[in-house]
Amino acid sequence: MNSKWYMEGIDSPSEIHKILAKERQQTLTKPRGSLGVLEDLAIDFSGWQSCETPEVTAIKIAVFAADHGIANENVSAFPQQVTIEMIRNFSTGGAAISVLARQMAAEFVVVNVGTAQECPLLKGVVQVPVGLGTANFTKSEAMTEQQLEQALAVGAGQALEKADLFIGGEMGIGNTSSAAALACALLQLPAMTLTGRGTGIDTPIWQRKQKLINLALEFHADSLNSPLDILRCLGGFEIAALTGSYIRCAQLGTPILVDGFIATAAALLAVRLRPEVLGWMIFAHRSQEPGHRIVLEALDASPLLDFSLRLGEGSGAALAVPLIQSACKLHAEMATFAEASVSQS
Amino acid sequence: MNSKWYMEGIDSPSEIHKILAKERQQTLTKPRGSLGVLEDLAIDFSGWQSCETPEVTAIKIAVFAADHGIANENVSAFPQQVTIEMIRNFSTGGAAISVLARQMAAEFVVVNVGTAQECPLLKGVVQVPVGLGTANFTKSEAMTEQQLEQALAVGAGQALEKADLFIGGEMGIGNTSSAAALACALLQLPAMTLTGRGTGIDTPIWQRKQKLINLALEFHADSLNSPLDILRCLGGFEIAALTGSYIRCAQLGTPILVDGFIATAAALLAVRLRPEVLGWMIFAHRSQEPGHRIVLEALDASPLLDFSLRLGEGSGAALAVPLIQSACKLHAEMATFAEASVSQS
Repeated sequence: MNSKWYMEGIDSPSEIHKILAKERQQTLTKPRGSLGVLEDLAIDFSGWQSCETPEVTAIKIAVFAADHGIANENVSAFPQQVTIEMIRNFSTGGAAISVLARQMAAEFVVVNVGTAQECPLLKGVVQVPVGLGTANFTKSEAMTEQQLEQALAVGAGQALEKADLFIGGEMGIGNTSSAAALACALLQLPAMTLTGRGTGIDTPIWQRKQKLINLALEFHADSLNSPLDILRCLGGFEIAALTGSYIRCAQLGTPILVDGFIATAAALLAVRLRPEVLGWMIFAHRSQEPGHRIVLEALDASPLLDFSLRLGEGSGAALAVPLIQSACKLHAEMATFAEASVSQS
Repeated sequence: MNSKWYMEGIDSPSEIHKILAKERQQTLTKPRGSLGVLEDLAIDFSGWQSCETPEVTAIKIAVFAADHGIANENVSAFPQQVTIEMIRNFSTGGAAISVLARQMAAEFVVVNVGTAQECPLLKGVVQVPVGLGTANFTKSEAMTEQQLEQALAVGAGQALEKADLFIGGEMGIGNTSSAAALACALLQLPAMTLTGRGTGIDTPIWQRKQKLINLALEFHADSLNSPLDILRCLGGFEIAALTGSYIRCAQLGTPILVDGFIATAAALLAVRLRPEVLGWMIFAHRSQEPGHRIVLEALDASPLLDFSLRLGEGSGAALAVPLIQSACKLHAEMATFAEASVSQS
């Protein structure tokens, strides 16, 4: 296992630059601590960029899309073809994440990690399918070991050394079921606590979704011995890709802005595999999906926003970008007490 | 009283455009309701701009500055001269709100409504003092009736008919004491519940601050019969200006983004004077100042951010601007299910 790329070194953020940034915050023309969360963000970015006054301009958003065998059990409000239809919508710029990527002037790429039907060639869509969707995880392992390795590598391939910030998004009909199953296995919790209504299913379907997840947890009980085993048995190709992208970002020293429930499940997998990844993560928002709260708590995460979102695609993370930019701009551009000749307390 | 400008008509937001916007939200390529708070924001702006796809580009930020007689009681962590020093810092672009106004490409103006010492002429600073600071409200009325009318009018003068969004900020050493006293009088609560540590005072000063506010509430008990009486007895020139600006914005049909504790106290005054103003307000954030939470609750407000800020200047409001812009861009630019040929649930 140690020969795998994802077990390679991850540096700690620069402690000395965090100390310098903390000192700088004390000299800026404001009461100490009065910028709250923004001060912490600026200090974190100083550590990540090894720089006293970091900037966040080069932003990369990669949306990973794939299909799920579990969708055949009718656990989603939308039919499976929507995965490909939404890939097209990402490509033509009409999806929420497309709009936000434009607003943030981010580099935006869509990655097909494995739709159930063959996906047509589309502008801005990288075609690297590792299979025609996962298998139904209530009946077999979701993916083979080889597919898992491939999907992790697809994600890693999207991590960038030069980016100031990486956002991973996802699209895949049925993927809240996979994310809930993964979180249940990682946190040793029953389906009831982590299963939500996804894109908007009614109560009978929601109850069946829970039942199927519990069934899968039982079916795979003897195999769920490591984060990678859990990901292979219950995961999705796009979730594995997210996990791979997060680990590679940490290896490259690129800060990660984590989106909603599915992205946070992938983050939990990455952190269980490589605990050092957590030191490179910010959590963008707390979504409406009830399991998200629990996974965030497991990561001891304090997300920036609480907007009752439940869209995925990386949309909640993209939304938080200007707040991070504000934190860094305030840190770099505010005058010090000395510069502005303002009296101190 | 009815002859005063602030009693003139306030229109309701356009209900028909809100309905159209709500219908549009249902057609966009996302699960219904999945953009949470962003959907509500877009719908509100449709009502405010009488337009199905509103835009938020013309943003005005006015920071009102003034001094407070109560500062002579040493209730602040900073000396009174900091008010003028910070006006200079706003003018030269080194303050937090200066940095954020640049980031948001907002029109930015600073208004001296009455510093204790004469304020020098500075670039970008409108000089319309209505007095050399307020009187110490523990010993007399903070301002005369004429000063109150002048300060309200100064605020109104900064409201703009063409702006897509108005942000009022404030600066004034001692003004959390005034805001707490105002909120106590308006909400009939003792000082203990609404008095915080402002820019960062220690416990003995904090206790004296509470005692002084209770003293003032007793001293003026027979005079605190209307929002305007309360504002005259306990207010600050910059707080009265904020109140005037909010009422005038509502009269002009300009949405208002309310900042922290002091701005929200001014918002409460405006709403008590003219309840229709509330229909034109969004609340940007919940600050660290404990009284802010209570005043927000009194206004039934759900602020967008919770960042432990306690800086004032309009900084928390400016920070929230891109989130509002995202909401409107998503509403306007996302493809509909029909346009993108995406299957519905």
